[in-house]
Amino acid sequence: MKKLIKNGTIVTASDTYMADILIEDERISAIGKNLDAQGAEVVDAKGCYVFPGGIDPHTHLEMPFGGTVSKDDFETGTIAAAFGGTTTVIDFCLTSKGEPLQNAIDIWHKKSKDKSVLDYSFHLMISELNEDVLHQLPKVINEEGITSFKVFMAYKNVFQADDETLFRTLITAKELGGLVMVHAENGDVIDYLVKEALENGKTDPIYHALTRPPEIEGEATGRAAQLTGLAKSQLYVVHVSCAEAVQKIAEARNKGYDVWGETCPQYLMLDQSYLERPDFEGAKYVWSPPLREKWNQDVLWNALKNGQLQTLGSDQCSFDFKGQKELGRGDFSKIPNGGPMIEDRVSILFSEGVLKGRITLNQFVDIMSTRIAKLFGLYPKKGTVAVGADADLVIFDPTAERTISAKTHHMAVDYNAFEGMKVTGEAVSVLSRGEFVIRDKQFVGKPGSGNYIKRAKYNETLSSIDEKLPI
Amino acid sequence: MKKLIKNGTIVTASDTYMADILIEDERISAIGKNLDAQGAEVVDAKGCYVFPGGIDPHTHLEMPFGGTVSKDDFETGTIAAAFGGTTTVIDFCLTSKGEPLQNAIDIWHKKSKDKSVLDYSFHLMISELNEDVLHQLPKVINEEGITSFKVFMAYKNVFQADDETLFRTLITAKELGGLVMVHAENGDVIDYLVKEALENGKTDPIYHALTRPPEIEGEATGRAAQLTGLAKSQLYVVHVSCAEAVQKIAEARNKGYDVWGETCPQYLMLDQSYLERPDFEGAKYVWSPPLREKWNQDVLWNALKNGQLQTLGSDQCSFDFKGQKELGRGDFSKIPNGGPMIEDRVSILFSEGVLKGRITLNQFVDIMSTRIAKLFGLYPKKGTVAVGADADLVIFDPTAERTISAKTHHMAVDYNAFEGMKVTGEAVSVLSRGEFVIRDKQFVGKPGSGNYIKRAKYNETLSSIDEKLPI
Amino acid sequence: MKKLIKNGTIVTASDTYMADILIEDERISAIGKNLDAQGAEVVDAKGCYVFPGGIDPHTHLEMPFGGTVSKDDFETGTIAAAFGGTTTVIDFCLTSKGEPLQNAIDIWHKKSKDKSVLDYSFHLMISELNEDVLHQLPKVINEEGITSFKVFMAYKNVFQADDETLFRTLITAKELGGLVMVHAENGDVIDYLVKEALENGKTDPIYHALTRPPEIEGEATGRAAQLTGLAKSQLYVVHVSCAEAVQKIAEARNKGYDVWGETCPQYLMLDQSYLERPDFEGAKYVWSPPLREKWNQDVLWNALKNGQLQTLGSDQCSFDFKGQKELGRGDFSKIPNGGPMIEDRVSILFSEGVLKGRITLNQFVDIMSTRIAKLFGLYPKKGTVAVGADADLVIFDPTAERTISAKTHHMAVDYNAFEGMKVTGEAVSVLSRGEFVIRDKQFVGKPGSGNYIKRAKYNETLSSIDEKLPI
Amino acid sequence: MKKLIKNGTIVTASDTYMADILIEDERISAIGKNLDAQGAEVVDAKGCYVFPGGIDPHTHLEMPFGGTVSKDDFETGTIAAAFGGTTTVIDFCLTSKGEPLQNAIDIWHKKSKDKSVLDYSFHLMISELNEDVLHQLPKVINEEGITSFKVFMAYKNVFQADDETLFRTLITAKELGGLVMVHAENGDVIDYLVKEALENGKTDPIYHALTRPPEIEGEATGRAAQLTGLAKSQLYVVHVSCAEAVQKIAEARNKGYDVWGETCPQYLMLDQSYLERPDFEGAKYVWSPPLREKWNQDVLWNALKNGQLQTLGSDQCSFDFKGQKELGRGDFSKIPNGGPMIEDRVSILFSEGVLKGRITLNQFVDIMSTRIAKLFGLYPKKGTVAVGADADLVIFDPTAERTISAKTHHMAVDYNAFEGMKVTGEAVSVLSRGEFVIRDKQFVGKPGSGNYIKRAKYNETLSSIDEKLPI
Ligand SMILES: [Zn+2]
Ligand SMILES: [Zn+2]
Ligand SMILES: [Zn+2]
Ligand SMILES: [Zn+2]
Ligand SMILES: [Zn+2]
Ligand SMILES: [Zn+2]
Ligand SMILES: [Zn+2]
Ligand SMILES: [Zn+2]
Repeated sequence: MKKLIKNGTIVTASDTYMADILIEDERISAIGKNLDAQGAEVVDAKGCYVFPGGIDPHTHLEMPFGGTVSKDDFETGTIAAAFGGTTTVIDFCLTSKGEPLQNAIDIWHKKSKDKSVLDYSFHLMISELNEDVLHQLPKVINEEGITSFKVFMAYKNVFQADDETLFRTLITAKELGGLVMVHAENGDVIDYLVKEALENGKTDPIYHALTRPPEIEGEATGRAAQLTGLAKSQLYVVHVSCAEAVQKIAEARNKGYDVWGETCPQYLMLDQSYLERPDFEGAKYVWSPPLREKWNQDVLWNALKNGQLQTLGSDQCSFDFKGQKELGRGDFSKIPNGGPMIEDRVSILFSEGVLKGRITLNQFVDIMSTRIAKLFGLYPKKGTVAVGADADLVIFDPTAERTISAKTHHMAVDYNAFEGMKVTGEAVSVLSRGEFVIRDKQFVGKPGSGNYIKRAKYNETLSSIDEKLPI
Repeated sequence: MKKLIKNGTIVTASDTYMADILIEDERISAIGKNLDAQGAEVVDAKGCYVFPGGIDPHTHLEMPFGGTVSKDDFETGTIAAAFGGTTTVIDFCLTSKGEPLQNAIDIWHKKSKDKSVLDYSFHLMISELNEDVLHQLPKVINEEGITSFKVFMAYKNVFQADDETLFRTLITAKELGGLVMVHAENGDVIDYLVKEALENGKTDPIYHALTRPPEIEGEATGRAAQLTGLAKSQLYVVHVSCAEAVQKIAEARNKGYDVWGETCPQYLMLDQSYLERPDFEGAKYVWSPPLREKWNQDVLWNALKNGQLQTLGSDQCSFDFKGQKELGRGDFSKIPNGGPMIEDRVSILFSEGVLKGRITLNQFVDIMSTRIAKLFGLYPKKGTVAVGADADLVIFDPTAERTISAKTHHMAVDYNAFEGMKVTGEAVSVLSRGEFVIRDKQFVGKPGSGNYIKRAKYNETLSSIDEKLPI
Repeated sequence: MKKLIKNGTIVTASDTYMADILIEDERISAIGKNLDAQGAEVVDAKGCYVFPGGIDPHTHLEMPFGGTVSKDDFETGTIAAAFGGTTTVIDFCLTSKGEPLQNAIDIWHKKSKDKSVLDYSFHLMISELNEDVLHQLPKVINEEGITSFKVFMAYKNVFQADDETLFRTLITAKELGGLVMVHAENGDVIDYLVKEALENGKTDPIYHALTRPPEIEGEATGRAAQLTGLAKSQLYVVHVSCAEAVQKIAEARNKGYDVWGETCPQYLMLDQSYLERPDFEGAKYVWSPPLREKWNQDVLWNALKNGQLQTLGSDQCSFDFKGQKELGRGDFSKIPNGGPMIEDRVSILFSEGVLKGRITLNQFVDIMSTRIAKLFGLYPKKGTVAVGADADLVIFDPTAERTISAKTHHMAVDYNAFEGMKVTGEAVSVLSRGEFVIRDKQFVGKPGSGNYIKRAKYNETLSSIDEKLPI
Repeated sequence: MKKLIKNGTIVTASDTYMADILIEDERISAIGKNLDAQGAEVVDAKGCYVFPGGIDPHTHLEMPFGGTVSKDDFETGTIAAAFGGTTTVIDFCLTSKGEPLQNAIDIWHKKSKDKSVLDYSFHLMISELNEDVLHQLPKVINEEGITSFKVFMAYKNVFQADDETLFRTLITAKELGGLVMVHAENGDVIDYLVKEALENGKTDPIYHALTRPPEIEGEATGRAAQLTGLAKSQLYVVHVSCAEAVQKIAEARNKGYDVWGETCPQYLMLDQSYLERPDFEGAKYVWSPPLREKWNQDVLWNALKNGQLQTLGSDQCSFDFKGQKELGRGDFSKIPNGGPMIEDRVSILFSEGVLKGRITLNQFVDIMSTRIAKLFGLYPKKGTVAVGADADLVIFDPTAERTISAKTHHMAVDYNAFEGMKVTGEAVSVLSRGEFVIRDKQFVGKPGSGNYIKRAKYNETLSSIDEKLPI
């Protein structure tokens, strides 16, 4: 069935203009003035922007962590994402040493298949890289279309990989066409600082931040970048939280290294002082890396503006305050890390970034969608408003005002980190491959309607139709 | 009359996709699959890219310099530009101290009106900024649509402005909505070094380079950037030639200053050793700033890739070797500065940049067109392929090979700085507001058909039709 | 007459050890354990440090400025200096365009000859550098022993030299063996900002700081350093006040440029908020460059520790609050710039630097004496405790506590910028060429007893006796 | 017995002057003009410099490495050192995991006691830092006077410590008063690159360099510095070889971190091309870190000049070419790392540093002796020419010319890395605690005459006599 979106202002990563959009067979077939509406359902986008659906490159849905499981799963998580203007998520598939990779992938497929209301894909965590794992990787890339690999430099004795594993992953990714993602904190130092803090009776949430200082995020980021340059490979640093890390990424890029950086809404808007909130409420604000001193926020915004950082992920990993975050009462190291962030990622970037003049409207689209699609092999199927692309579209009212609150949000958890914050701009309707998921601010989608997307290799494109570019 | 460009691959600053383009009333009216061709002339772009016409932000056509006049005027210059895939030029209107600004502008209108085959606009040079000049500026901006102002930090006793003038210009531009452009070299030091070289009998072309070392380009660039930050204004550094200057621009941007940088094909491809060519041939390669040691080229390319530099200008200012460049025999300081560069700017960026993997195809479009349109108030009328934009389009065969030579180029001068260089990729046809200027590699345009374009203020848009964006 | 200083702990720029010092014929003749005291006056330094007398490289005694004259002259100024542990001052001899240099020097000899209680020398200000001035310089250097030249980049239309003059001075200094000193602030910008502030009724002392922001000190410092590198010459940046300038000096030194930096006690201890003191009291704290935000102090201290800055000058230029500073009521630009600083320079560096662990005891000696002697051609006659050196010595009680106050200081002015500040460490006795100037905290010297010192060229030594080093 | 050294020019880290030196009871008792020679043996130093004996902070005498043992032991090693003007060595005492520290120290005492002709001390290598080791450390520091601890970031599975050990060592050193030394290369990456090179048949000596690129020395240096800053501890980076590492040290110092750097003669004078010498001769030039591209030498020299690096060590670890270096034929990873460097360290710094104008004469003394004494708790007993200090003196003819050669050197190995290099300046006589070890270029010392020196804690002084400084 055809749809015609009329009277909207289309926004892409480079352009802003008024035109109508014709949708046929899940994709955009034409953009123009006065397109023929015959046979098409007409959707009025007057007064609204129409931009590509957000892509969340960093989610942890229904993920086991520290003896509990993150609350939002592929159903509640993608519904909340859709309300916020996101149409694709890439979730982290965790592996264990010794276990076949396919097992882990199968578990992730099972979690998502019947639940997701949006299209989705997976990154693969690499915990070791021996001959055995090496042999499994080509299949993961070619058959599963998983072309990005996450390495942890922190979480000692749990997820942490040593430098040889990181370096080997970089070399391998280069050869096979993958993108290496890194959680960059020095886990050895954190491990020491955490033990020492606990031994000294420092058990409150604020010590989560104080035992993971920015120096060691900067250190690990610089180390990963340096290894990437040496391997002539490619690196994507997830959840950059501070000036020290931004500087390392900038230095690497200035040397011509292929290094990219993502930040998250929490680092742009919240700061370390939140961890000091009384009645253990600080636990709500426990992320790794931790929230930083407030002045880092300006550095992060400027890095998005200047292109030193390129993307915004949510690092969605939600836990209830009651019963989950509370596991860390009396021992901050037992607080599950993470928070509910998938829903408001796009809104916050628009309200705080575009409307406050920190980034342009086109940068907004690039940061929350297009650049992510390009880096992770989803482009041009996803990530833009262009003829031939999937009709993953957001009709966005830039003047709507709302107040973020756990009372009204669509995530499954009992608090919102931005409780009470006013934002301007809201998704009115959201389409996934031409079908409404959100219509007039109501959920109209269906669990299981989302497709798993096999992604292209790094620096390759994922055409939705078989076309040949001139070169 | 309608045109339909079929089968091409459209390229914008962010997107690449196959679709047809419908042109009506000088502008793009639709982009789509299988658009209705009825009543339209069909143009086949099979195997070709279709991208927005290049915008050359930096030309000196028929400009007096050192007792002679640059050879290419608005006719030969724009014809050559069109052959190369450029559809708009912005030329520098020179002023003299004491003379009413309008006089200078009138002279420039006279030079261009009946000659230009492409749309064009002017920058205004600021030689002093007293009360009298200040009073004239609002009219220049609002009535003439001239919204960019050039200040020279070099050419002592000729064009050079002092720091107070530069600072005052920055303050004024901020208030009135203009963009300050700066030729950044320390003219005082150059003046000393040139005199001293000549006194010591160092008269060959190579001394042009040796008396304008990169240190003083870096110094002046840093100074201008620092003043910009202080004035909270905006700056565009023209013709960045070396690592020292790139670093200053990067530092300024990292501090959040609104500073932009342009480089030119000559700095990307040629180096200081060219100035040592025998038989005075070095004079052909005399630009200011001068060509640099070869290693700077990598820094410039990487800066384009990373966004530390954002645009490519030609600094077109051509002089015959015979009779013009020769004025400097026996005294390098009398060699007219500049060269023929308007024609091959786009080709070189494509062939050396995109095809050699230094920048992406979308960056190519941004660097040679879109970003320039946005910075100088031409967007979205110019600088993109989008519904509503002027149909300034290039149909570009990315596989065509040719050898650059003065024998075949279309500029009016007797040499080409890239003589013998092979490039891949060539404009097959070029349209200006929907009309062919170049068709199947033949000039089919008409002198005088180009329109003068009044530009929008800095950070404002120049809509080709009266539309209202949501915000 | 012989003197034997017993039981003291000798401190030099590199060593700390207990030994006695024998003084004969104005100089140190032996250092040892149990030296033969026969025929010598014995001075007990038990519990005290004995270090070389401070050298103040930056004073303006009896200097005309803005229609008034600095209050302390060579008599009160050098007496106060002696009380503080200083035994040599180098004062700035001002010149005027067109006037023979010798005239200016003669005036300075006249001011000082019968008044100074300490040895002294002169720097020469360079306001222009034409052929005429160039011809006079060799005599200034060779006959007057003036081997350092000051260039102002600020004070537009008064002292300010253009970049060509600065560059020419650097080239000339290199050839003749001089050291170029620079007041680094961009005078053009200041001039604009001051006019604009006054036009807007911003006349209070705080606007002195706000119209001379750190950006333009950093800019000018970087410019001077860059020109120095290009000229392969040598530069000494006076009164460095802020992080921006420190960074430029560090960058220059990292490139191998011969660039040195001086800071002053006021920048180490006071900050911009002083300028906001009520009842026009802010005027007491008007220096150029101005006092900065407090965080700069840490940067300056660390720069002294790391050797990015090397010396401490007083920039002594004192004006009474009553009658002099008050000239600027209603117009901050009329406040005479400068303050009384000659007396406490050494004490503050000891108390705040050494005792607070910011620098070592040996660095203290280097910073306030030895390095200055070496840079300005006074070494080894001045600046150290070594056999053969002039017996310019300070017997210093590191445990004495005192409170700085205008009531007790020895300068001729009616306020002290450090009023009420407690310092630990005080000069008990001070000898100039073996004679007491201060004895047991009493002045026992004689106006006119100080000698004018002809200094060695840059990087040459000024031996007090005709000795030949091996090479 | 008394000695009087007459007519020499004394040089310390800050001073240069002519005076005689009186030696009594192993120490300097007086320095002066015309000192009473009665009862003293007079030594004429006319035309010579007299400076403190060099201190070599980095030797590996008779050290097991890769199945062999370094050739020079405490006898041949210290004799060669003495010929070169060194009077104290600090050797690395290796430990093994699980073995009591005292065992290792006892072994080192046994190696040295009857052999050393010079005073000596030990650093202790830290391979792990568990509770058991922690309990042993106070004794090592307080009873053995070993106050510096070496941690290896390279040599995976052999010496390499993980980041937690490094961080714990930094914390512990801070508490106990020790200085942490670090071999900074990323051993994980090296391990990978070495295996990969060997698997690909890349077995020649040059691959030693290519598998340990400067990027990973820079990385490890930055990491160690960052951890030091975080621990508020102190760090000494041994054998800095390249610009990347210098930059990291400079950045750390600019942040106020207490980080120091040592380079070695090989990095100042030799370069990577030496490893390509035919007939396996490249093996003679195998150090870790490896020799670098030649341009790094300028950076290292400038770093010594500017104080970014502070000391020169030899990293003496000599192996015969025949029979030892040859172990690596066919497998570069089996080439014993190290070379003979103890003898010419001082000469090269003088000849190439002072005489070529790269550093001053006083810096020379500081770099090869005084600063080392201060950093490692030997000062003021060692490291200077001052009353009270040990009479460890070098009488040095700055005009003597010689050619370095294995034929004439005094080390026990069959080649010299500087074979054929001409140097100017040579130790004529060398005294250790007042006794000649070298006299008129002949060895006159005695194995076993050297004393083991218990060193002071970090930032404390080691007085040779019980004196109390004022504070
Ligand atoms: Zn993470
Ligand atoms: Zn995560
Ligand atoms: Zn120019
Ligand atoms: Zn130009
Ligand atoms: Zn000044
Ligand atoms: Zn001054
Ligand atoms: Zn080592
Ligand atoms: Zn070693």
